[in-house]
Formats: sequence, C-alpha cells, structure tokens
Amino acid sequence: MIKTYNLRGVPFIGVGVERRGSVVAGRLKEDLIRTSAMGRECNRPVESYGQLDSEKGVTRPEGSPADKVLRDFTVKRMLETGLTVNVDRVGNIFGRREGIRQHEKTVMIGSHLDSVINGGHLDGALGVFAGIEAVARLRDEDFPNGHPIEVAAFTGEEGSSFEVGAMLGSAVLTGKMNVEEALSIKNTQGRTLGDVLAEIGYKGEFTHRIDDIDAFLELHIEQGPVLDSEEISVGIVTHITGIAWLKSMVTGHENHAGTTPMHLRQDALVAAAAVVEFLDRRAKEMATSLSSSIVGTTGHFRVSPNNINVIPGSVALGLDIRAASLEAMKQLTDETTAFLKGLEPAYGVGVQVEPVEAQPPVDLSAEISEIFEKSATQAGIQFRRMASGAAHDAQNMTAITRTGMIFVPSVKGISHSPMEWTGWKDIEKGVAVLTGALKSLSA
Amino acid sequence: MIKTYNLRGVPFIGVGVERRGSVVAGRLKEDLIRTSAMGRECNRPVESYGQLDSEKGVTRPEGSPADKVLRDFTVKRMLETGLTVNVDRVGNIFGRREGIRQHEKTVMIGSHLDSVINGGHLDGALGVFAGIEAVARLRDEDFPNGHPIEVAAFTGEEGSSFEVGAMLGSAVLTGKMNVEEALSIKNTQGRTLGDVLAEIGYKGEFTHRIDDIDAFLELHIEQGPVLDSEEISVGIVTHITGIAWLKSMVTGHENHAGTTPMHLRQDALVAAAAVVEFLDRRAKEMATSLSSSIVGTTGHFRVSPNNINVIPGSVALGLDIRAASLEAMKQLTDETTAFLKGLEPAYGVGVQVEPVEAQPPVDLSAEISEIFEKSATQAGIQFRRMASGAAHDAQNMTAITRTGMIFVPSVKGISHSPMEWTGWKDIEKGVAVLTGALKSLSA
Repeated sequence: MIKTYNLRGVPFIGVGVERRGSVVAGRLKEDLIRTSAMGRECNRPVESYGQLDSEKGVTRPEGSPADKVLRDFTVKRMLETGLTVNVDRVGNIFGRREGIRQHEKTVMIGSHLDSVINGGHLDGALGVFAGIEAVARLRDEDFPNGHPIEVAAFTGEEGSSFEVGAMLGSAVLTGKMNVEEALSIKNTQGRTLGDVLAEIGYKGEFTHRIDDIDAFLELHIEQGPVLDSEEISVGIVTHITGIAWLKSMVTGHENHAGTTPMHLRQDALVAAAAVVEFLDRRAKEMATSLSSSIVGTTGHFRVSPNNINVIPGSVALGLDIRAASLEAMKQLTDETTAFLKGLEPAYGVGVQVEPVEAQPPVDLSAEISEIFEKSATQAGIQFRRMASGAAHDAQNMTAITRTGMIFVPSVKGISHSPMEWTGWKDIEKGVAVLTGALKSLSA
Repeated sequence: MIKTYNLRGVPFIGVGVERRGSVVAGRLKEDLIRTSAMGRECNRPVESYGQLDSEKGVTRPEGSPADKVLRDFTVKRMLETGLTVNVDRVGNIFGRREGIRQHEKTVMIGSHLDSVINGGHLDGALGVFAGIEAVARLRDEDFPNGHPIEVAAFTGEEGSSFEVGAMLGSAVLTGKMNVEEALSIKNTQGRTLGDVLAEIGYKGEFTHRIDDIDAFLELHIEQGPVLDSEEISVGIVTHITGIAWLKSMVTGHENHAGTTPMHLRQDALVAAAAVVEFLDRRAKEMATSLSSSIVGTTGHFRVSPNNINVIPGSVALGLDIRAASLEAMKQLTDETTAFLKGLEPAYGVGVQVEPVEAQPPVDLSAEISEIFEKSATQAGIQFRRMASGAAHDAQNMTAITRTGMIFVPSVKGISHSPMEWTGWKDIEKGVAVLTGALKSLSA
C-alpha cells in the first residue's frame, strides 16, 4: 500500500558505526544516529552532539517534509527487517512479521515519529526503531513466534501542527476518533491532515482490525528526572497520571506604589503569590504521604500592568495538577479551588476559577508489567515501577488491549528540547527488556 | 520674552459656568474645565465627565501640541490676572506680581502643565491654576503684598517624552541640572528638548535668580487614597518619601510539569512568590509599628517560559520600597535583599539582586507647614499631616528655599488615569488654605 518512499535529504553517516547487520548492537545505534539528523535544523546527527548548537533541535511536525524523510526511512528499515508494510488512512505505518500459528492475535510495539518544534530526536522515534530492532533480533535468532508481531509508527502524537489532534493516529486506530473527522482537521496553515498526508504520500488505504490486537508495548524516554537521578536504566510504567488544569483570574486594584498605604491596598500579586505557595506545599505533602505520584505546578502566571511602581491590578494563573490516583487528583484540585476562592475574603480581591481540562488517570496492564519485570530480572537489569506524568499513544491503546510501557532515562529530566538525551547503555537495556517481553508475549 | 501665544484648538466652554471675573468661585472652575479638554483625546471637557469614555485620558507630554495649547492659555490667564510673564531657557513660565516693598524676596507658587500619556487633567495643571487663582484673590481684595509673588509653570515634570528628564524644569531652575544638558536631552522621536521648545515658541531667554526665592508652595492632587478614605479635604505634606528600587532575577530549572516529581524541582516561581509575600508582610508590619509612612511593592514580576505545563525556569522582579524615614527605607531594603539571597539555599535557585535607584527622603519646611496649618485653622478647614509617596517639583525646590505642599483628595486614590478626579469642594478648600498661606508669607 506504500505509494512512494525514498531517502532524499538524509545525509549518509557511517563513520564509527558497525555496518548494518554485521554487529547487532550497532544496528539500532546507527538508525538513531541517522534519524537524529532528520528535521534537525543544522542537519548534523547526534554523533557530534557535543558540538551541536543547543538551539538547533529537531523540528518534525506530522506531515512536514522532515516527517516524510523519516517515514520513508522507517519503511525502508521495516522492509529490510523482513516486515510487510501497511499504511492506514491517517498515515499510521504498520510493519508486520507473521506468526507461525494461524489465527493468533497480534502483539504490537509502537510509538510515534513526529516531534515538537525544536525538540529532541528520541521522543517517539526511539520507540519505533526499538520495536524494529526487537523484531530484527527475533529474526536473527530464528525465534519461532506463534503470534504475529507488528511495529506501529503512529501519526501526530505531539500534535505540533494539528493542535487539536495530539495522539491523533492512535486515537483513530482505537476508534476514539472518527477517521473522517481526523482527516478534516486543519493545521496552522489551514490545510487538512488528509491533504498534507496525501502530499507526502502517506494517506494509505489500509484499515487495521482492532479486535485483532493481543497486547501493545511502548518504549519511550521518561521525559522526567526520576530514572536519571536514581541511576536506574529501566522504568516499568504502571499508570499514566490524570491531569487537571485550572485557570484563574485574581483581580485586585491597580494603584500607585508610592502613594497607596499598605492598609488600603488590594494587591492582586500578593494574593496570587499565596496560591503558588499553597499548591507547591500541598503537592509536596501529598507526594510524601501517598504511595503514588502527584504533582502540582503554577506554570502560567501573568501580572498586569507589571510596572515596578504600580500595585498589580490582576494576575492570570494557569495551574497543572497530575496524579496517578483519581481520588488524590480530585482532592488537590478541590483544595486548590477552595484556596483560590478563599483569597477573596482574605485579600479583598475578586477570584474567578475555571477547570479547563480534566483527564482521569489510566492504569496500564498489571500482566504486561509483570512480563516486563520477569524479562528485566532474567537479563539482570535493574528497574523500578513508576507512573508517567506525560501522555502517550499507549494511553489510547488501553481502550482496546493489554498495554505496557518501558521508560529509559532522560538525562537531567530534559525533553522537548534540543538537549534531550539518553545514554546508549540505557537504551540497550531498555531494548533488551522489550525484546524479552516480546518473546514471552509472541511465543 | 514671550514669542507667541494663542488659543487655537481650545474649544469654547461657557455653559453652566459663571462668567469669568463676575463670581470669584467660578473662575478657577472655568479654567480647570477649559484646560481639561487640552490634550484629551475626545476633546470633551470634564463637565461631561460622567459621559467620558474612561479610556480617553489627557495626553499632554512636554513639548507636544497639546502642551503648547495649555501653555498659551496659561500665559493668557496670567496676563489677565495682571502678572508679568517670563519664559526661561527650558520653557519654565513665571507670572509675577510685584510687591509693594523694594528688595523683598519672591514667594513662589507652582507646579507643572505636562501630563503622562492617557492621564488626568488635574495632575500638575491644578497647582498652576490654583496659584493664578490665589494671586487673583489678592488682587481682587487689593491685598498689599510686600513681597513679590510668582506663579511658576514648570516644564516636563512627568518626563513622558524625555524619559531621563522627570522634574526637568525645576531641576534646571534649582541648578540641579545644567541648562545646556537639559536642552540636549532627546525625546523618544530623537529630537532635543531645545528643538521641541523652540518649535512651540517656549524656548525663552529669561534666567531666574535662585537666591531671590523666599518660599515655594505647591498644591497638588494626592495621587493616593488617604484623604479620600478619611474624608479630609486638605493634606499638609511634611515629607516626600525616599525611594529604593531593587531588580532581581530568580533562576531555577525549567522542566516538564507532569514528569518532574516535587522533590526534584527548582521552581523559580515558588521561590519568587515567597519574596512577594515577605515584602508585603514586612512593609505592613513596619507601617503599623512606625509613626511615619513606609510602603513596599512588587510591581514587576515576569515569569518565564510562562506555559501552564512547564515548571517556571526564571522570574524577573522589580521591587519598589519607599519611606519617609531614611533609616526605615534602608532597613526594609536590606531585609528584602537578604531575603532574596536566602532563597538560594532555601529553594535551590540562583538569585541576582541589584539596586537600580535610590533617593533619600526629603523633609519639607516645618515653618511652611505651620503656616498652612494656621491658614486652615483660621478658615475652619480640617486637615491632616502626611507624607507624599510620589515625587514632585517641590522636592527640587527644597534645595534652594523653604518649601511646602498641600494635597487635595484623589477620588479612590486614582491618578495617572483618565479616571483621576477631585471634587470641587475639596479643591476650593485647598485653594483657600493656599491663599491664606500666601497672604501670610507675602505680607
């Protein structure tokens, strides 16, 4: 079903890397080095990372020319690995290795190829190429997988061009979003996803059966500092945290900073600063007392009129609360809302609070987590259980199948940044755990 | 020394106001109504205040066409009041009534004609026209003033066009600034004050003697809420508070709000919010325990990157501290600086603090304050002593002569705004106290 593929615009990088296929360990590394140049402003791959201008990240929004280059390379690598390739109507790519038994359900490994604007090269693409590598290892060993195996590369996980459509490809696959609706979404230039996919040759005709999937596995960078700070190579994700966003406007009275005595002020900033302290303190207390993850952040905070000699008249706030437990998320959201309303009598200000986004936490499959743990234990690889504070395609997949995730460390917790990085040894351990689990599930 | 003056562009407003000169009480009121249209975007005077678009304030920066219109009107009214008019090299206008005795020093009343962008009509102009009115009352009564009296209209008190030059005219008069230096200051369009003054016909040739001034009186709106909230018509200003500005940068670590656990954060906003609370709390405590005025404000507070789902990486702060006592101002400034530095160990952030402005408090003349008090008491007008939290031309005048100020209430403390307002009865009481003091001083 592939219309076209080629490798135009991909610089050749072979120096210092084992030739493909000759040494297994070098194959994924070479793939990652090659893909790291695709969409990076300077066109230099990560081998020369130390010399890279940290401003020059990877910009590979869904449907962009850089997305096409990486899609073409992905298809080429799937074909070289002996997979049959299909592209569905929203551009999701599936590379399939048949099982030796008839009528078995599919074990799927996947992630996404698109990136944020000025991001890193591993966020998404690592999971796709780790999947290809895992299947290649099975093939190299002549592993007799009973179940068919597929490697999926999902369209538009980041939603950098199609802002309403984050995790778009997996939403369509799992029936959460109608395919026609998805294809009609317009990007920031006013063009539809359907038109953009057709232009780059990835508006396919395939439709994946969703009752055919037995399990879904995703390997992804953590995008947080937990594994890096604890020096653990592998995280086994048990939950994806829920998210609640509050927007608030605190309105006081703008006045002259020199002529307004302290007792006659309604300072919006003094009132709003109290909620910053409150949310941080309560999230810390709950994170300490609970056994599961919880975070609270005041990320947006805009003071008006913002002149040194004027008492602030208003502050607009955006608060982000996430937890692995729905009950804890609701508790912190309710407490914060009540605290905000309490600023009115305490500071003589007006307060508006509005919940603008709320997604409940998602539990990943306990069975799959156990299979990952066994795989890690057998390989002698240290791991920890953890929650994901960011959303992933795996979240959509829980609606249709048993789903598990593996995290590998993000150096200093950095992601969505040119400085995003994961050490090679950590990637190798993550792939080993993934490959072991794939064998168990597809046997 | 006047080159030209005219009233082009000034709408005639006579309805509902006593004819000039026929009833004394209406004269100043008519002047204020007429001048209120000069530089107001809609050209409507304040008589129709209730219907004014509150967005349409007075914009009358020094050297602007609106400034010329008001200067011409001021000169006309001075001449009608029997004053001899002189304009000095930086455009200060002096209207002089001679004394009946030879060789007596001058009693000067003055303020400024320029306004901020989109400000009110009383800030400055009220003091000039109140001075003209006070002299007119002496003339009406055939008061035999021994001392000469002058009404001064100073150039560029607000410094809206010539940003480096606030209180520019009085700075040149008092020798605080060299006249050539002042004339060479460039405005936001790159033109010098000298050129702009020449263009509007107010680059005069007069030089005022500064050893000839016996006292200086200024009537001004309070620009704060004290008189209005206490329902007192007249404030007698004993000090102009000192001012200290601190700029600070708090630098933490920008990170993903969902994936970064609470214990691994360096949240610049959480740290910076603490100093907002500290400065407000300490200023309130000191204002309660001290007998003199003190205020502390965090007016500038800019969070970066300011996205709801990103932990803030840095906050830029601008802090404004003012006090009538130098010791108290230094204490609060030192405490705040120490608190800011203390954020480093407490929150794991980096902190830079820089003092960017510091002016000591200025004492006004106790003698003049007593004369104002006697004048008020004789007229049966309630008053209170107070400090000024804003700077005024009077501050410069303290360097060369005994200086006193009278405040009249600002409704709700509002100034530098189209909503700036002072009730007529309060203005009348302020002018009565001013006139009484002028008689005492010039007798």
